[in-house]
Amino acid sequence: MMKSFLARSARWAGSVLASSVLSASLLADTAPDRSFPSARDSDPRVLGWMQGQPPPPDRVIRGYDPDFFSFPKIRWSVCHMRELRPTVRVSRGLGAPSMLPRAEDPAIEALRVQPSNGGDALSWTAALDATYTDGIVILHRGEIVHERYAGCLDEGGQHAAMSMTKSLIGLLTEILVQEGVLDDTVEVAEIVPELADSAFGNATVRQVMDMTTSLDYSENYADPEASVWVYAASGNPFPRGVDDTSPDGYWAFLPTVQASGPHGRAFGYKTVNTDALAWILSRTTGQSVAELLSERLWSRMGAEQSAYFQVDARGTPFAGGGLSAGLRDMARIGLLMLQGGEIDGERLFPASVVESIRGGGNREKFQLGYSGLPGGSYRSMWWVFHNGNGAFAARGVHGQTVYVDPAADMVIARFASHPVAGNAANDPISLPAYQAVADYLTGRSEAP
Amino acid sequence: MMKSFLARSARWAGSVLASSVLSASLLADTAPDRSFPSARDSDPRVLGWMQGQPPPPDRVIRGYDPDFFSFPKIRWSVCHMRELRPTVRVSRGLGAPSMLPRAEDPAIEALRVQPSNGGDALSWTAALDATYTDGIVILHRGEIVHERYAGCLDEGGQHAAMSMTKSLIGLLTEILVQEGVLDDTVEVAEIVPELADSAFGNATVRQVMDMTTSLDYSENYADPEASVWVYAASGNPFPRGVDDTSPDGYWAFLPTVQASGPHGRAFGYKTVNTDALAWILSRTTGQSVAELLSERLWSRMGAEQSAYFQVDARGTPFAGGGLSAGLRDMARIGLLMLQGGEIDGERLFPASVVESIRGGGNREKFQLGYSGLPGGSYRSMWWVFHNGNGAFAARGVHGQTVYVDPAADMVIARFASHPVAGNAANDPISLPAYQAVADYLTGRSEAP
Repeated sequence: MMKSFLARSARWAGSVLASSVLSASLLADTAPDRSFPSARDSDPRVLGWMQGQPPPPDRVIRGYDPDFFSFPKIRWSVCHMRELRPTVRVSRGLGAPSMLPRAEDPAIEALRVQPSNGGDALSWTAALDATYTDGIVILHRGEIVHERYAGCLDEGGQHAAMSMTKSLIGLLTEILVQEGVLDDTVEVAEIVPELADSAFGNATVRQVMDMTTSLDYSENYADPEASVWVYAASGNPFPRGVDDTSPDGYWAFLPTVQASGPHGRAFGYKTVNTDALAWILSRTTGQSVAELLSERLWSRMGAEQSAYFQVDARGTPFAGGGLSAGLRDMARIGLLMLQGGEIDGERLFPASVVESIRGGGNREKFQLGYSGLPGGSYRSMWWVFHNGNGAFAARGVHGQTVYVDPAADMVIARFASHPVAGNAANDPISLPAYQAVADYLTGRSEAP
Repeated sequence: MMKSFLARSARWAGSVLASSVLSASLLADTAPDRSFPSARDSDPRVLGWMQGQPPPPDRVIRGYDPDFFSFPKIRWSVCHMRELRPTVRVSRGLGAPSMLPRAEDPAIEALRVQPSNGGDALSWTAALDATYTDGIVILHRGEIVHERYAGCLDEGGQHAAMSMTKSLIGLLTEILVQEGVLDDTVEVAEIVPELADSAFGNATVRQVMDMTTSLDYSENYADPEASVWVYAASGNPFPRGVDDTSPDGYWAFLPTVQASGPHGRAFGYKTVNTDALAWILSRTTGQSVAELLSERLWSRMGAEQSAYFQVDARGTPFAGGGLSAGLRDMARIGLLMLQGGEIDGERLFPASVVESIRGGGNREKFQLGYSGLPGGSYRSMWWVFHNGNGAFAARGVHGQTVYVDPAADMVIARFASHPVAGNAANDPISLPAYQAVADYLTGRSEAP
């Protein structure tokens, strides 16, 4: 019985992690499965998940169900992570939120989207549905010009940010670096001695920030012996079987990661880098990343809602992918990035923070380790497109993004619950959609 | 191994429930154990619970530790329930909070408190410490005249409300009754047919509201066969062993409760009444009590923080004792009660709601079932003192209270983490302290 319990337990742990931290590189070439029910047919209200007082047994979703984060349950679960597992708040503080000005532009809904992988042009609404969009907010010159919700989300709700969490951890790190609090050239072991004998020990903080570490760590979910499964089990917040020997917590797992070669040669998208970075931040500041994110950003940017992190069984926030937040608050993060660290006339961090991120990482090293974004790079856990508009983004599996386009003076924040984790499944529609809006707004800006 | 896992699992489930829903009647005559370390010596920051990046293993508190809610861990855990188990938000909405006006009166700190069980008079600060107060807010004429925090709490934090949760459920019910949405004279089976064959089936809604049901249900924690242990296991939000046959969720447990005699004869303080009431509310409105509490009160009273409920494995809020909230927001609930349903010039519910509650329940029936508050009664899950000031209160184990004194135009909201669950341990100091403040404020009001 214990064995079956453990097997079950490992499955659900794997399930959430597989989706939580799924290497986009792994799925970069995965074509979307056309057989999935549509966004409307898989709407969680249509399917009745967790509806009723109480919901019928076959409509209940539990945090320890092995498939709670699989399609179609994911379409409900992305908005309800705190109901499924322990979490820690990222406080917005007690003050009044600063409301974003609104100037809705109906022309956006009339835009057509030409998928980059061929196929017919889509209406704006069809493009949102085809990418299982739960919510989208578009800011132009700091004003909301478009905002829509669907599925499990509304303006007062919260949604899993998935790997956009990494970009917030990277941003916090870059802030400390630019402020001179943290030296990104030192080796990790100097800051976190517990990591001295791991791969991270002789990596520099910058190599961790840019994911150019070389880790003997596999996120190959098809391999039952892959290290990702042990990592997944280490983050299990629920009671363990007595013969469960996996490390107890994310930070207990990290010291077990060994190097696969010299650091600094190639980009390698591995979630554990972000957990290591969180440890570096916490050891430097004496604060958890939940406290730090609240103090530095969430309580100072006029946020409408507190956010939260999932935590492991020792209370450590899941830095690699555990944040949930309101959509307009994610748009505020984009606005901060667009405006070089200022919001509502207040400077929250030095302009050099955004300059460092916008400049991007090493593109050759990026190409060596990633096929998903040709010509792009990764810097301080932000994706840099190196396109004509100077766009950069936070990105997370299943279609999460905060897309910042300086040339168009535009921010797009989007939450989604696409059935396929890898963004290769929705990029061929999403990225042309963002560019279509940017082109329209740029033209509008240039009109008399 | 499974057996030991189950035993461990049952212990922690029991642990949280024992403290969460502990029958105050059971402990009404329990004298405080003088051997407990003082509030200052047991301060969670002094003891180092969950401090450090990461905390040392012997300073970690987990939601499934059998003793996570025992003294001294409780002094940390009361402020961190969401980090220990799944929870659902009670949203404050997205608007600006309405700040309570402030007119601190230093004279309150100079008051002396004469314990009712003998002993020397205490200074105000000593009285707060002796009752392990984590926070206290006193409103007079709607203004904050005194506010202090200690232990794990500050003005931006949240704290377990314990059985004060019941009073909020009772308040919501009374609102629906006074609005004519819910008839408190009908039998429960008419609203929740699933309860037809249980003790609740032929009880009226009013009998459930006032806890004059007669239930064959024991909250005798000393008896390992007591029904409270099955109830506790039913609320377990964590994965279950395959041979765990306890009902799956609070609402799965309720139909198993049988009657011990005719209803309506005596007060009996049993937490399951509140869970039954929550089911009645949810079936009536189609909303969970988290949604209902947000819609009716939290989003309309100028709350500074969203609150939250612990949930069971099916996502059902723990109505009997699972709320956590900010202290000033609990004070706002008291102000609403003091002002007959109005706050900030807006009426949130009919004045008859408070009239019904203030009037109290049947005092003879109360005395038959409860020795803790001589002369008092229980109405719609509020405690009514029937004293000269017309005071009434929400109360929860370990010292939680929202104390409303109409004669003194005063509200006291207090969170605490007293080592002893039953309020008999702190009432001999707390109640004289509240009366001392009321007397002072009344005198101040009557001056010139």
